[in-house]
Amino acid sequence: MRIALAQLDPVVGAFTANVEKIRDSYTKACKAGARVLMTPELSVCGYPPHDLVERPEMFVGNEKAIAELLPLTAGKSCALIVGHIITNPNPLGRKAQNVVSVLQGGKVVFRQAKTLLPTYDVFDEARYFEPATEVKLWDCDGTKIALAICEDLWAQDSAYGRRLYGKDPVDEYRKQGAQLVLSLSASPYVWGKSQKREKLHREVAQKLGVPLIYLNQFGATDEILFDGESFASDASGKLLGRLPHFRKDFAVFDTEKLSWIEGDVSKDSAPVNELEVLADGLLTGIRDYFHHTGFKSAVLGLSGGIDSAVVGALAVKALGAENVLGVGMPSQFSSPHSLEDAEEQARRMGIRFRVRPIKFLYSTASRELTEGFGQLADLALENLQSRLRGMTLMTWANHLGSLVLTTGNKSELATGYCTIYGDMVGALAPLGDLYKTQVYELARYINQAWGNPIPERSISRPPSAELRPNQKDQDTLPPYDKLDPLLRDYIEEGASVDDLIRRHAGNKDSKWVVETLEKVERNEFKRRQAPPVLKISHKAFGIGRRVPIAKSWLGTAKRDT
Amino acid sequence: MRIALAQLDPVVGAFTANVEKIRDSYTKACKAGARVLMTPELSVCGYPPHDLVERPEMFVGNEKAIAELLPLTAGKSCALIVGHIITNPNPLGRKAQNVVSVLQGGKVVFRQAKTLLPTYDVFDEARYFEPATEVKLWDCDGTKIALAICEDLWAQDSAYGRRLYGKDPVDEYRKQGAQLVLSLSASPYVWGKSQKREKLHREVAQKLGVPLIYLNQFGATDEILFDGESFASDASGKLLGRLPHFRKDFAVFDTEKLSWIEGDVSKDSAPVNELEVLADGLLTGIRDYFHHTGFKSAVLGLSGGIDSAVVGALAVKALGAENVLGVGMPSQFSSPHSLEDAEEQARRMGIRFRVRPIKFLYSTASRELTEGFGQLADLALENLQSRLRGMTLMTWANHLGSLVLTTGNKSELATGYCTIYGDMVGALAPLGDLYKTQVYELARYINQAWGNPIPERSISRPPSAELRPNQKDQDTLPPYDKLDPLLRDYIEEGASVDDLIRRHAGNKDSKWVVETLEKVERNEFKRRQAPPVLKISHKAFGIGRRVPIAKSWLGTAKRDT
Repeated sequence: MRIALAQLDPVVGAFTANVEKIRDSYTKACKAGARVLMTPELSVCGYPPHDLVERPEMFVGNEKAIAELLPLTAGKSCALIVGHIITNPNPLGRKAQNVVSVLQGGKVVFRQAKTLLPTYDVFDEARYFEPATEVKLWDCDGTKIALAICEDLWAQDSAYGRRLYGKDPVDEYRKQGAQLVLSLSASPYVWGKSQKREKLHREVAQKLGVPLIYLNQFGATDEILFDGESFASDASGKLLGRLPHFRKDFAVFDTEKLSWIEGDVSKDSAPVNELEVLADGLLTGIRDYFHHTGFKSAVLGLSGGIDSAVVGALAVKALGAENVLGVGMPSQFSSPHSLEDAEEQARRMGIRFRVRPIKFLYSTASRELTEGFGQLADLALENLQSRLRGMTLMTWANHLGSLVLTTGNKSELATGYCTIYGDMVGALAPLGDLYKTQVYELARYINQAWGNPIPERSISRPPSAELRPNQKDQDTLPPYDKLDPLLRDYIEEGASVDDLIRRHAGNKDSKWVVETLEKVERNEFKRRQAPPVLKISHKAFGIGRRVPIAKSWLGTAKRDT
Repeated sequence: MRIALAQLDPVVGAFTANVEKIRDSYTKACKAGARVLMTPELSVCGYPPHDLVERPEMFVGNEKAIAELLPLTAGKSCALIVGHIITNPNPLGRKAQNVVSVLQGGKVVFRQAKTLLPTYDVFDEARYFEPATEVKLWDCDGTKIALAICEDLWAQDSAYGRRLYGKDPVDEYRKQGAQLVLSLSASPYVWGKSQKREKLHREVAQKLGVPLIYLNQFGATDEILFDGESFASDASGKLLGRLPHFRKDFAVFDTEKLSWIEGDVSKDSAPVNELEVLADGLLTGIRDYFHHTGFKSAVLGLSGGIDSAVVGALAVKALGAENVLGVGMPSQFSSPHSLEDAEEQARRMGIRFRVRPIKFLYSTASRELTEGFGQLADLALENLQSRLRGMTLMTWANHLGSLVLTTGNKSELATGYCTIYGDMVGALAPLGDLYKTQVYELARYINQAWGNPIPERSISRPPSAELRPNQKDQDTLPPYDKLDPLLRDYIEEGASVDDLIRRHAGNKDSKWVVETLEKVERNEFKRRQAPPVLKISHKAFGIGRRVPIAKSWLGTAKRDT
């Protein structure tokens, strides 16, 4: 049996465009003599629709899309599997269900609702959907096919330190004698996740002793990146090839010959370079955010430092050099090299560069705002500089109809080493889920893979916010190679404070550990107003991490401003 | 049997303080000869703890608190009911359970986990908790008592247009012969909700034919307000009295005599003035946000308009006049009356007032930022003024160690009639869930109840952002008495676009309706970076409303900046 895979990028709410993409793939699938075309989870309405699930237009849009797609399948031998939302047929429980339907001969011949509803991290599916009441197999010319929707195959997962679900659809598949498993997914990218994902699915194939085909969407919705990387496994759990990451693809797999007939399939079962995937993910996140919000061009501050250099390089790849404006905003505290380095960055990237010193504005503003106070506090003056820069970027972005890209990283966001309404301004923070040490890694990869767009000095100079004379990050923060592992263990691993002290301070010198964790908690208020952060870890700041601001936790009764 | 009610305000994570409050109430309960003391849902760790539920310290803190409370009950006849988090005894499923425990004679003699886990709006309980596997009654001296945790009694609710739950703990209570129901709750305030809440619980009492005592916490956690308003109902569903709103109270109810022995109990079953409750709720929200984050003083911009006048009046009540600084920031576009009105506002409220004209800063900044562009776009120039004001407030707040209060309302946030990093700056937006028409209502109530702190001219003058000569809100927006009902039907009721056109434009002149809804969707990016908004409606902007920014929905491919 030939199974076609449409590795597409459905957009939330874009019914017409999504239907068009599905239609194109269906035409290809028919031409290729496929018996079945797989499209991703919620391919009709896009994932994740969040609270739009509750809108009447969402139900109407899904129904109309199915009505448009059905006639395509009349008189064709290829079955079309689409993911969509239906009104829960049961009057009790959530109003919606997340389903896949098999369209064939102009009719819906089979439908399966999602059984396991992820409700952790960025996922809120229990908020919206009623789970399946039963699991059935689709009989396709005598072959019993299990149609799994993403999480349905993740019951075995213990990523959260425990098994979350009391039932496992795979047990049903076995009982009912499934001969083939098709997984239709919208599975977010996380650094290193694709290997784990493959392993988990290969184990399902092995457990059932049947081949498994896994389809994932690519693209981005706000902070969530989808990597694609669809694949097939044989009945023994052997990986038979993988589709590309963060790119559209159409592929056809033959389940008898266990081989690919079409598609950009990597036969190599070795994982791809994770830094390459990361870079492609971030530029996909930037590109899709701009596309889906109707913007073409970006403005960003170029400080000469590494963060802005990396964001600039990503923006150029995502939007084109002609659509990126770099702005140098030196002050009296900027080192002599900073502006040179920023200019060099712009030159290498081939982008426009404007210099707008904030010196005069800063002296004017600080004089006017000091009036009557004698002398403003250092913190107020440092933040003022950062806010004048933020204001400059926003004014020009507003004038040009562009979006500001935020250059901050996760180490800064975590510790509050950033100014709210200052360097935190922007529509999107591409590096907001990368620790500073990861930004360095990425910079080195980019230079090697993309022809050195980042000046060596931006990588080698000690990081500085340059808001005071000779200021260095390490005046305020521990060295990043010490800080970042601590932050990772706290934020992503959720280790206890006692454990963290043991691991990172060896029970002596625990002060810096405790002080750092207090900073993290105290600065929740800044993150609540941060731009969306492209998620690349198991726990990014933003919608997947929900922490009260007003609380009593690790000394939060005194907070930074 | 005498049942004591501790209407307390537990703070998230403040184990020591929460235990202290419980201990005080327990001493009072023993003195009053009570057989049972009720404390609110999660009284030990505070509600809602959000992702802190997943921290190891949360489990340790709860255990230690219970260990501290247990010895109090040794040798005493009063049972202490506390709400807390335990590790799920079952290795499968979520790690935590939300439970109430009965502490008596130094031991935990009864424990009940929560059965219904609200997972909608601001609630994410399915994310954290495993539901109860069984419902049992507590036998207290031969009286069978049902211990319900908040949502457990809401299965009958159809607020979301449908019944959400397949089971109803009340059916179990009936089967097992409950003779008394105690509800331990943390139920957020929503305008008009307390009447509905009472009705729902009175119906449960009537259905079971037994008395019901309802305890709710008061206070605030970030955007969520808790109104208290605990009450008792007899077996026929008659309301027997209500505790105060947004205030601490300790009360004792006699279940045989069906009467109150102690407490500030309103015998009147008529609802209280909803505007009074609203005003008290907002000032509770301000006060608790400041207390819990360790701040004492506020800075706010006084424009002479109604929003800042109302926020100022609330801040004075919440923090004391000596802790509020009003700032007038006139520009060349400010009407001659604006500064006078702002001064008058400050004078009436008895707060300090500083004037910092933005004229010179604006001319300097616009000149410097125009350089090379010829002429900046109007939008960029308007936003620039707003951002200079935001920068001024933030600089002074940083200097003084204060927090900025945001003065914007829900009509503005909904339509994007506000400047990101400009008038949107601040730690908290007290009016962010009030439509402009509601702000007027509240202003009139405040003037009548609090001795006219708001100048009549702030109420009567046409609202204006004053960013252009002679600008009025109604140049850009429909009149508020036309706009607000549309926004309410869209955001809070979730009506379809077709319905909205029918209701608000009578099928003719639908353009303004569609354009308004497009504005709402296009401006999601601003709300994502807005300060927490005190929630007073069924659907406030913020954590309870989750909508993608990058989507294709009602013409969102072009957005305001």
